[in-house]
Amino acid sequence: MKIEIRVATEKDLDSIVAMLADDVLGSKRERYEQPLPNSYKKAFHAISSDPNNELIVACNGDEVIGVQQITFTPYITYQGGWRATIEGVRTSSSIRGKGIGTELIQWAIQRARERGCHLIQLTTDKARDDALRFYKRLGFSATHEGLKMKL
Amino acid sequence: MKIEIRVATEKDLDSIVAMLADDVLGSKRERYEQPLPNSYKKAFHAISSDPNNELIVACNGDEVIGVQQITFTPYITYQGGWRATIEGVRTSSSIRGKGIGTELIQWAIQRARERGCHLIQLTTDKARDDALRFYKRLGFSATHEGLKMKL
Repeated sequence: MKIEIRVATEKDLDSIVAMLADDVLGSKRERYEQPLPNSYKKAFHAISSDPNNELIVACNGDEVIGVQQITFTPYITYQGGWRATIEGVRTSSSIRGKGIGTELIQWAIQRARERGCHLIQLTTDKARDDALRFYKRLGFSATHEGLKMKL
Repeated sequence: MKIEIRVATEKDLDSIVAMLADDVLGSKRERYEQPLPNSYKKAFHAISSDPNNELIVACNGDEVIGVQQITFTPYITYQGGWRATIEGVRTSSSIRGKGIGTELIQWAIQRARERGCHLIQLTTDKARDDALRFYKRLGFSATHEGLKMKL
């Protein structure tokens, strides 16, 4: 298996939504159907046209087998430091356990360094025990509470 | 006391950095000195020129007494939903306990609704017990682990 990690194109969107929907939590909140709901395409274009957002896929040949989004944000805190935030990390259930998730996160860490970020961060649902162990193994520390409010 | 909440201007930056530095955790990582380190000004301009970032201050007349940053991010997850992220919330130590923090967060929630966000989120250091109670009282749920890695 030869993995390529690159910026997503609109042709990858169908596979991306399929992966997001094929997930214990994602199955309750995504709508993977044909044609794909227009809201996904609008979000894709908002992300693609923003220099501070990157939608990244891992591919094995033509097959999209992983996805993540990286957001770069300038803050006043930390003497005006930039941060990278990772969100929506998923790998295809067909290749789970092959280290694709690790490759994606290591790619994000490298990209965050290139962009001059002093910190990389993410939140993970407390229901995802495996994910928490996975991120700690990669060097993240669970120093913060992740608070959310639905609007 | 008549509080105005508005987008920050460059003239507010000195007061903002003073508040960030006057904090148990912030005192270790900020540099409040004259002239203000240029990195703060660069971050201010990066934030101000980005339509998806807003640096917000609370003022009592000419005095800046509170600050927060709100970032609006389009995601593929949640059917292509936008989220608002709050960061760097501080109030002046001179007015602590007067409800300025509550006003800032309620302003952010309203602004997130105006921007069509389905979720508003933030992370808070697990060392900040008071902050966790404060956000829970305002309706946030600590459903997620907040993971960070210094680069």
